Amino acid sequence: MKKNILIIPGDGIGQEVTTWGKKVLEKISEKYGHDFAFDEAIMGHVAIEATGNPLPDETLEKARKSDAILFGAIGHAKYDNDPSAKVRPEQGLLKIRKELGLYANLRPILLFDELLNASSLKPEILKGTDILFFRELTGDVYFGEKHRSNDRNFASDLMNYNRYEIERITIKAFEAAQRRSKRLCSVDKANVLETSRLWREVVQEIAQQYPDVETEHMFIDNAAMQLVKNPKKFDVVLTANLFGDILTDEASQIAGSMGMLASASIGDGTGFFEPIHGSAHDIAGQNKANPLASILSVALMLEISFGLKEEAAFVTKAVADTLKAGFRTLDIADNTTSPELILGTKEMGAKVLE
Amino acid sequence: MKKNILIIPGDGIGQEVTTWGKKVLEKISEKYGHDFAFDEAIMGHVAIEATGNPLPDETLEKARKSDAILFGAIGHAKYDNDPSAKVRPEQGLLKIRKELGLYANLRPILLFDELLNASSLKPEILKGTDILFFRELTGDVYFGEKHRSNDRNFASDLMNYNRYEIERITIKAFEAAQRRSKRLCSVDKANVLETSRLWREVVQEIAQQYPDVETEHMFIDNAAMQLVKNPKKFDVVLTANLFGDILTDEASQIAGSMGMLASASIGDGTGFFEPIHGSAHDIAGQNKANPLASILSVALMLEISFGLKEEAAFVTKAVADTLKAGFRTLDIADNTTSPELILGTKEMGAKVLE
Ligand SMILES: CC(C)[C@H](C(=O)O)[C@@H](O)C(=O)O
Ligand SMILES: CC(C)[C@H](C(=O)O)[C@@H](O)C(=O)O
Repeated sequence: MKKNILIIPGDGIGQEVTTWGKKVLEKISEKYGHDFAFDEAIMGHVAIEATGNPLPDETLEKARKSDAILFGAIGHAKYDNDPSAKVRPEQGLLKIRKELGLYANLRPILLFDELLNASSLKPEILKGTDILFFRELTGDVYFGEKHRSNDRNFASDLMNYNRYEIERITIKAFEAAQRRSKRLCSVDKANVLETSRLWREVVQEIAQQYPDVETEHMFIDNAAMQLVKNPKKFDVVLTANLFGDILTDEASQIAGSMGMLASASIGDGTGFFEPIHGSAHDIAGQNKANPLASILSVALMLEISFGLKEEAAFVTKAVADTLKAGFRTLDIADNTTSPELILGTKEMGAKVLE
Repeated sequence: MKKNILIIPGDGIGQEVTTWGKKVLEKISEKYGHDFAFDEAIMGHVAIEATGNPLPDETLEKARKSDAILFGAIGHAKYDNDPSAKVRPEQGLLKIRKELGLYANLRPILLFDELLNASSLKPEILKGTDILFFRELTGDVYFGEKHRSNDRNFASDLMNYNRYEIERITIKAFEAAQRRSKRLCSVDKANVLETSRLWREVVQEIAQQYPDVETEHMFIDNAAMQLVKNPKKFDVVLTANLFGDILTDEASQIAGSMGMLASASIGDGTGFFEPIHGSAHDIAGQNKANPLASILSVALMLEISFGLKEEAAFVTKAVADTLKAGFRTLDIADNTTSPELILGTKEMGAKVLE
């Protein structure tokens, strides 16, 4: 199979982790006789530094032409502490999601048995958890009109949804639920928000076309609580952009660490694969970052964009085997891990490659 | 001390739990020689059934005239599954918050040592946690303009904040931080939202007037994660209405159960005290609800609205002693609780009264 893959390392630890994602892709290409060609592009803070633009046209053009994108991370503390900055790294990520029509962000919460103890949650609460989030990614208050009054004392963001935006991701989520355990939970705040009431109406309508799927509606506050209390009760979780941002980060603690979670953004165009962790500037360049989320993003790419199930399973198994052998990065080590099993980014990447 | 207290039981388990809050107030009044007079009013689903209005004028008038309000819970599944309902119980709660100017919702996450094992989080993660949330309560996307297009296919809610709305709660939160461990974490989504950027600007400005308080800013997605990962790192948490709704429900798992958490809403007028749990219609009328959150709301009322510190401490101690004696309601029992120590609402209420 011949594929053009674009690597966008982005900011912070992005470079370190995508290096290992790429090496895994090369290995797979070799082992299974595929022909993967790679290109690279910039986005985020590094792109602002180089061009003034968080998403240069050249990057967008390369993205459009590629068959899949492996992305690292975005963001820089410099902008976080300057609320009046006009240009921000995150704008690059939001714009590429919108431009490529990446309306569905899939975030599987994959729990490796070996990491049961790395979580702050009790193992008996976690055991057996397997959640697939569908987060809407190109609508909601993220993309609604923003306003700041001339005297700077009033600010607003428009939270909004169109029916078709809800329909298309809802259908994808129900299809996934049919392939999985046939349970879907839609999360909203319909007791307060008009957007959520439209959301719930649409989900209720579409649910009728999937009578074999058990559908539940839950308020976001309750969902944030239930996710800690009893994560096993969830299977497919469908939600809006903002609520999905919050819930999936929270859910990362189920998997032991943000450093373990991969995500796939799909929709109209090229698929976009990224860890859910951020740029983590505090550990960037120190060989401390966990490359497993990037490697697991590669597994999602192989399966979802290229339909290469066997290859994807092979990558996931390589990660599982590495964990089984006892190796850990710092973020997933616990006080029972012996120091010689705690690896840096490179060493962990190399172990998985083996 | 002479005080007029209004009881608004509301919906579902509200009646059962406020009954015990009221009994505790009567007991305190007797023991300490105060003169507490009680009145009752309706709100929510029960008020819709009786008058068509979730917040009848008579209730609002009584609320304005009273010295403090003890509220139960609101909501009914009937409306949740009907996204097109025009009148909803929650409108009553939102309206009374707005009308009474209750802009600051204080939610202390009080962890009783006896309940360390009732949580889904590991005891060593929890031990020592003591968080005080300041949730803004009369602004944000809760109260912004709502819109639905004529063809019903587009919906929006305006997320918005004015500077003064952020200032007044921020000052209250910093004052509390000074009295506590001098750490404040403000939670927003300033990398995406204009409202959050205004929020962060205002908090940064006001922070300069409290140089003794260590101030941190955190994105909501990260906060939702850190709260599970390492709750001890938080002390005073300041946030907007929607984010506060989500984070405090999530944090309830730290305290073992929603059934343990009380809240105080304060601002321009009469103080309003309520458990953070909802109406829980599934267990209503079955003598299963945990009355402790209502009783702890009474402790907050005594301290915050009436300045009765000793009385408040006495109530909190009565709750702690009851837990120490081993008694539990269903929601806070675990598999080590012997069955004869598991009590119903009435029995638990009576134990605390003793
Ligand atoms: C960086 C930020 C804009 C982004 C988001 O909020 O979508 C991130 O948190 C994510 O979840 O991908
Ligand atoms: C009932 C609902 C409107 C309310 C809210 O969202 O504010 C509740 O969840 C709360 O937290 O008090």
